[in-house]
Amino acid sequence: MTAKNLQDVLDASGNTVELLRNSQIGAYIYPVVAAEFTNWQREQKAWRETAVLFDQSHHMVNLFIKGPDALKLISDTAINSVENFPVNLAKQYVPTTPAGNVIGDGILFHEAEEEFVFVGRAPAANWLMFHGETGGYNVDIKKDDRSPSRPNGKLVTRDYWRFQIQGPNAWDVIEKVNGGPVDKLKFFRMGEMNVGGQTVRTLRHGMAGAPGLELWGPYDSYDKIRETILEQGQEFGIEPVGSRAYSSNTLESGWIPSPLPAIYTGEEMRPYREWLGAGSYEATNALAGSYVSDDIEDYYTNPWELGYGSFVKFDHDFIGRDALEKVDADAQRKKVTFAWNKDDLADIMTSLLDTEGPGYQFFNLPNANYGSSNFDEVKDAAGKLVGLSMFTGYSANERRGLSLGTVDPDVEVGTELTLTWGEPNGGSEKTTVQPHKQKEVRVVVSPVPYAVTARTEYREGGGWRSQAAS
Amino acid sequence: MTAKNLQDVLDASGNTVELLRNSQIGAYIYPVVAAEFTNWQREQKAWRETAVLFDQSHHMVNLFIKGPDALKLISDTAINSVENFPVNLAKQYVPTTPAGNVIGDGILFHEAEEEFVFVGRAPAANWLMFHGETGGYNVDIKKDDRSPSRPNGKLVTRDYWRFQIQGPNAWDVIEKVNGGPVDKLKFFRMGEMNVGGQTVRTLRHGMAGAPGLELWGPYDSYDKIRETILEQGQEFGIEPVGSRAYSSNTLESGWIPSPLPAIYTGEEMRPYREWLGAGSYEATNALAGSYVSDDIEDYYTNPWELGYGSFVKFDHDFIGRDALEKVDADAQRKKVTFAWNKDDLADIMTSLLDTEGPGYQFFNLPNANYGSSNFDEVKDAAGKLVGLSMFTGYSANERRGLSLGTVDPDVEVGTELTLTWGEPNGGSEKTTVQPHKQKEVRVVVSPVPYAVTARTEYREGGGWRSQAAS
Repeated sequence: MTAKNLQDVLDASGNTVELLRNSQIGAYIYPVVAAEFTNWQREQKAWRETAVLFDQSHHMVNLFIKGPDALKLISDTAINSVENFPVNLAKQYVPTTPAGNVIGDGILFHEAEEEFVFVGRAPAANWLMFHGETGGYNVDIKKDDRSPSRPNGKLVTRDYWRFQIQGPNAWDVIEKVNGGPVDKLKFFRMGEMNVGGQTVRTLRHGMAGAPGLELWGPYDSYDKIRETILEQGQEFGIEPVGSRAYSSNTLESGWIPSPLPAIYTGEEMRPYREWLGAGSYEATNALAGSYVSDDIEDYYTNPWELGYGSFVKFDHDFIGRDALEKVDADAQRKKVTFAWNKDDLADIMTSLLDTEGPGYQFFNLPNANYGSSNFDEVKDAAGKLVGLSMFTGYSANERRGLSLGTVDPDVEVGTELTLTWGEPNGGSEKTTVQPHKQKEVRVVVSPVPYAVTARTEYREGGGWRSQAAS
Repeated sequence: MTAKNLQDVLDASGNTVELLRNSQIGAYIYPVVAAEFTNWQREQKAWRETAVLFDQSHHMVNLFIKGPDALKLISDTAINSVENFPVNLAKQYVPTTPAGNVIGDGILFHEAEEEFVFVGRAPAANWLMFHGETGGYNVDIKKDDRSPSRPNGKLVTRDYWRFQIQGPNAWDVIEKVNGGPVDKLKFFRMGEMNVGGQTVRTLRHGMAGAPGLELWGPYDSYDKIRETILEQGQEFGIEPVGSRAYSSNTLESGWIPSPLPAIYTGEEMRPYREWLGAGSYEATNALAGSYVSDDIEDYYTNPWELGYGSFVKFDHDFIGRDALEKVDADAQRKKVTFAWNKDDLADIMTSLLDTEGPGYQFFNLPNANYGSSNFDEVKDAAGKLVGLSMFTGYSANERRGLSLGTVDPDVEVGTELTLTWGEPNGGSEKTTVQPHKQKEVRVVVSPVPYAVTARTEYREGGGWRSQAAS
């Protein structure tokens, strides 16, 4: 039998963990955008020291949701409150399963009356589409899928281009481009600005304490918008960031992009698994890392573990509410940054030169993840599993390895723990994995966001990104 | 005055070395082809252990030369003899300046009567075009330029696709694809085979002692040809090689892809410099490395230094003949591989983790070059400059850093020398360069090709690639 949907794939496999751990899809690619415009270290430094242009046009799904029931669809599936969700506000949308585990996340832009755009990875987009199609909602949903990972010279287009102007000089760039002052709206509020004579919509954003904007518009103006911003921003040191450096910015700002969608188990979720294609993200998603459990549910996370506890609002009914009401928030793991020991990371880097033995799993620079969702064991001095590392890389600003993950609530900042890098038994069959041995890496539990400036200034509101996002 | 040609650019600069050392063009990119299909180490290993599909469709210029004077144009500009150059033979074409220095190189395919195709980097192609246009030859020349370095989702097409099937299992793949035996013609002889019902032309090639083929055809059949080869080759372990690993194959096989075109000086060369554009490869080419001379001529190489001494044939008149006749072949530097000391390369790799000081110039894996043409100083124990390292990277097959370059004729294989990695005075202004200090790296002078199998089997004829190429 040929698998027609995710449920078929799981039934044929019989072991979801092994299926995903041996996915053949390869690295999670940030497509189309050139790897480097100058060099990845310089591009990382630019977001800390001058200004950057992030090109987010290609790696995320856009889901256009329109209709009288659009807000209800969102409300029914979001842990977030929609009580205060007027046009020109955005929220970091987080849906959960009936069991209260996170499916994914992304940004929901309220673009017009009864019109929303979701932007993010596939899992939350798929979940919105499923309910929009099957839940009896009066909505019209259009998916503009992420660009192909390896276009190989083929023409690529999207509905929207999407850029961010970020960094300490970002606002100077923005006002120069605009030809005059631009209102610093509150975080996640939407406005407009002028770029090369064209009015484009904006989302107030920020990075490392400095205000910035996200901008978007019809893809046919991509070249003109990009060139205008880079030209006008030159005097402020703006750098276009390539796809090699781009994804590592989150190591400093603290968002975990890659939770495992908690959709592989539960009878209530079966219709969804039968709706999801056999080639969907959820069916091909590569699970990577030293943490291996027989039970796929052990990879699930709840909102508190990912730092979204403050988004959970019981002012509305939503899928997962009953389960989340029973959660003791104080007993949940919490999101942290792991600061990697230099000597241990050095051992990993230089094991490429060992001629005896297989060496360690390659630590790619600056994004070292080798799956779509990553889980490395983190243990305390007694050898007890006290956390998981979920997104790993290197920051030229900090000159060290960093990873984002979760730890037990009683683990304090400053504690040294041991992270295991690499997979057991020589490694899985993923195409990103070479035969390797495992390496114990000392890590220090650190705040999230890690960057000192980001830690003190990024959180304008008090939620993870801000209250506006909650 | 706006520079209209290379000569204008040089005149405005006043210092050719500084101009090229501070080029803003960035890394020499192998465009369009995905960076990795599995992972770069696995792809490197595949060319040693199973079979690979190299995709050469995008990174080289194709120059289509037709007409009654095509062979004469080649003969007048090549160090190579054209005495024996029938249809269905290819040669590694090497042109020199009147002073006898190498302009570039590439492969010339004799495709039909009075029809040749040159395939390679820009410098030798430009030189052929210049003489074809200005030398009174009855030829028609059409240039199919290399693909853009950062196409950014734009459609890319070429006249030809170009693949190689290489590795120990290559011939098994070739005969499976062909649906029957394929004649193992001599090296650099051209034939035909069947791919998915389509007859395509082939060039007998080889790698590490194993016979392989280069194939090409009209670009509109790119997808079908590629998919057919990968499908049919699966049982023999064929791996598509991505652009990240691709260029490093030469570290094992020994071709130096990146001599500096020796065209910046000499009054006889002025018309050529006035013909070359201000945005040409020659005008924007990035010169990188620790070797810095005031005199651009110190970066020039002659055929012997690059291992092409056996190609020089005084059976015809050609540009550079008079100068080359005066060269004492035995007194020339010779091409070698430098095997890098592991501890020294480890220091470079781990300097990313130093928080004191700027660290060393980044050693990208597996291609560590940070310019279009690279020159690192190589000194003997007495501190005397005895060679230059010209193409640097890492081989997962050898598990070590390797570079290709030249050394004085009296330096023997096995000698330990000192290579300086990184540029003086904190580094140039190239976009690929971060502020850094220099690192002395012990290297052992080694044969070229470095790979043991390649050393013993690759050279079927006796020239560098083979006599067929001479």
